[in-house]
Amino acid sequence: MLVNAERFLADLHTLRSFGASGVGKGVVRPAYSQPDMAARDWLAQQMLDAGLRVVVDPMGNLFGLAEGPSLLLGSHSDSQPEGGWLDGALGVIAALEVARTCRAAGGPAVSIVSFQDEEGRFGVTTGSAVWSGHLALKEADLLCDHEGISLADARRVVNVTGEVDANQFTGFIEMHIEQGPVLDAANKQIGVVSDIVGIRDVKITFEGQQNHAGTTPMHVRKDAFQAVSAFNHALEQRFSNVVTPSTVWTIGHINLHPNASSIVPGRAVFSMQWRDGDTHRLEQMERIIRTLANEVADDRGMQVTFGPLLGLEPVAMDGKLRAALEGAAEAVTLGNWRVMPSGALHDATNVSRLMPVAMVFVPSINGISHAFEEDTAEVDLVAGLKVLEAAVQSLGS
Amino acid sequence: MLVNAERFLADLHTLRSFGASGVGKGVVRPAYSQPDMAARDWLAQQMLDAGLRVVVDPMGNLFGLAEGPSLLLGSHSDSQPEGGWLDGALGVIAALEVARTCRAAGGPAVSIVSFQDEEGRFGVTTGSAVWSGHLALKEADLLCDHEGISLADARRVVNVTGEVDANQFTGFIEMHIEQGPVLDAANKQIGVVSDIVGIRDVKITFEGQQNHAGTTPMHVRKDAFQAVSAFNHALEQRFSNVVTPSTVWTIGHINLHPNASSIVPGRAVFSMQWRDGDTHRLEQMERIIRTLANEVADDRGMQVTFGPLLGLEPVAMDGKLRAALEGAAEAVTLGNWRVMPSGALHDATNVSRLMPVAMVFVPSINGISHAFEEDTAEVDLVAGLKVLEAAVQSLGS
Repeated sequence: MLVNAERFLADLHTLRSFGASGVGKGVVRPAYSQPDMAARDWLAQQMLDAGLRVVVDPMGNLFGLAEGPSLLLGSHSDSQPEGGWLDGALGVIAALEVARTCRAAGGPAVSIVSFQDEEGRFGVTTGSAVWSGHLALKEADLLCDHEGISLADARRVVNVTGEVDANQFTGFIEMHIEQGPVLDAANKQIGVVSDIVGIRDVKITFEGQQNHAGTTPMHVRKDAFQAVSAFNHALEQRFSNVVTPSTVWTIGHINLHPNASSIVPGRAVFSMQWRDGDTHRLEQMERIIRTLANEVADDRGMQVTFGPLLGLEPVAMDGKLRAALEGAAEAVTLGNWRVMPSGALHDATNVSRLMPVAMVFVPSINGISHAFEEDTAEVDLVAGLKVLEAAVQSLGS
Repeated sequence: MLVNAERFLADLHTLRSFGASGVGKGVVRPAYSQPDMAARDWLAQQMLDAGLRVVVDPMGNLFGLAEGPSLLLGSHSDSQPEGGWLDGALGVIAALEVARTCRAAGGPAVSIVSFQDEEGRFGVTTGSAVWSGHLALKEADLLCDHEGISLADARRVVNVTGEVDANQFTGFIEMHIEQGPVLDAANKQIGVVSDIVGIRDVKITFEGQQNHAGTTPMHVRKDAFQAVSAFNHALEQRFSNVVTPSTVWTIGHINLHPNASSIVPGRAVFSMQWRDGDTHRLEQMERIIRTLANEVADDRGMQVTFGPLLGLEPVAMDGKLRAALEGAAEAVTLGNWRVMPSGALHDATNVSRLMPVAMVFVPSINGISHAFEEDTAEVDLVAGLKVLEAAVQSLGS
């Protein structure tokens, strides 16, 4: 059995054509958007052509199923509001190429998946969170995106054809770009993942008093932006005795209300996200965040409210699957690979609740991801595909 | 001659019906929006009914002209993105009532105006800035709102009927709500304005590096939101030896790019606005802002750029017009009035380039303005109308 590297690269470019945008190879294909749904229709046709049975579940997760027990490969095909062409798309197309190669060769049995909303339009890895039972669909339906659209409304565009029983799968392997600088800086072609860091994400709202920016003296203002700025400034110092060099935290989203230069903003909604490999540390950070936000609000006579806390625990990779990837990486790259943790969150975190999981990375040029400039050398993409193929072969034999 | 208080209040409520929104008496009627243009059509009809000649200039400023030399009264009828029902609307409707009363009584000659975009969808008092020659129309046309729409595009909805020569006017009186807490707190019914503070407004952009919020270590980030927060935090200290208790500064608008919780923001655009009665102090503050923003960018290996600096100088009111208002306020309120500066900017600032100007204030309940909750007691609205009428009468006789 032999994967077809040209067909694989051609399929990657075809998938990119859905939502192609921006400079370079950028893609705008957020969950449930028209380009996302069109891409999924095209993927479903490729699955059918590969002899797989297609099932779309209520969240819009797209499965291509082999008969009987099978290994599940895949990732996600939705993108960030401004994303790159590889991200989750690489793992989906690599899974497609390995699955159809295996099918043509008469085995091993390989099923594939493209999860929905991994990029968190409605939270964090929402599609796999619901499929894995981590998040009830009823609860997920209440989540809203930054424009106030609910998941319940957004997923009305999905043509649901059934549910997928996880018991048919013997394990899950997700191939992905690293999305960080480690492999590129070290000149390694493949990273076999040891574990995935945990993540927390919460929307915080400060409510003050909207007023005229000319006639309201500074000392009587209840300025919601000033509250966010004070919170953000104090947070670094509060975290200093708790975090490690690999801990990260981000305010990547903020909406002021009414967001006009002549008005003291009365409300600020922002997203606070933090990640670490240690569950205990994630909890310590949450306590600091809640305490500090309440202090800032109290000091200023303002109100603070917290949205639902979204999050996933740190997850170690399965020993057997990981060993198969390590053997394959050694064979394909002749030693030019390494073991590493994943600082990024992946669908594999959710799937680990249902079955053994493992992940394999290819380098991201300059470590750039979640941006139009995201890219990986073709030779590394093909190396990743071959490692995935070799691992599946060794597990199936 | 006697103004009709009931007709005046009814007209105020009719004007409010264009864009009526939100809680209480809120209004959403930004410049050139459908409700704003419909309100101006209605106002033009009232002007015609009052026997005035209607002219709409290229900016969309709406004039109702008396014959021969006349006193000009008025304000603006556009609103903030979320505004109150009085703001500039009060001055326009009071002007209408006084003008038609004078017309019916055979004099004095009173013309009226509703300026366009006082609330600064495209900058600061854009309509009167262009009419007064402070800002060239060609230059104004390049200004963009927060959504990137240019003024040139926005004003295509205007049916231009001519230009208005300022030489026909003997002076300009603008009645307005105070938009601050001074009169309400002091239980005064009328404020006669001594001078209007100056204002500066500039959009500042920090450009960093957009990247993945999980895989990018804190120490290599170029996070545009962190730059804004650091700038905002340091600004208060830098201002401390320069500002007075009546100086104000505001960051009321910020847009992160791409504004997603899982992405380190690569770009932040925000509006920095500051106001003071002293031109020299405004310039000192500008130097501090530019120096600090450059320092913050340099420290972080980021870029900073500044949009055009919009602004207006502090303006003293005309002695003769102000004396007429003071005499009228004394007569109408039996001493329950005061002299005060205006912390808010007004069209009168621009008009002062062309003719003598003066302003009269009525109280804002709890000092609230630029918000749906903005309101003034009816008895104070009518007192303001009567002061305006009496001042016009004394000037005309």
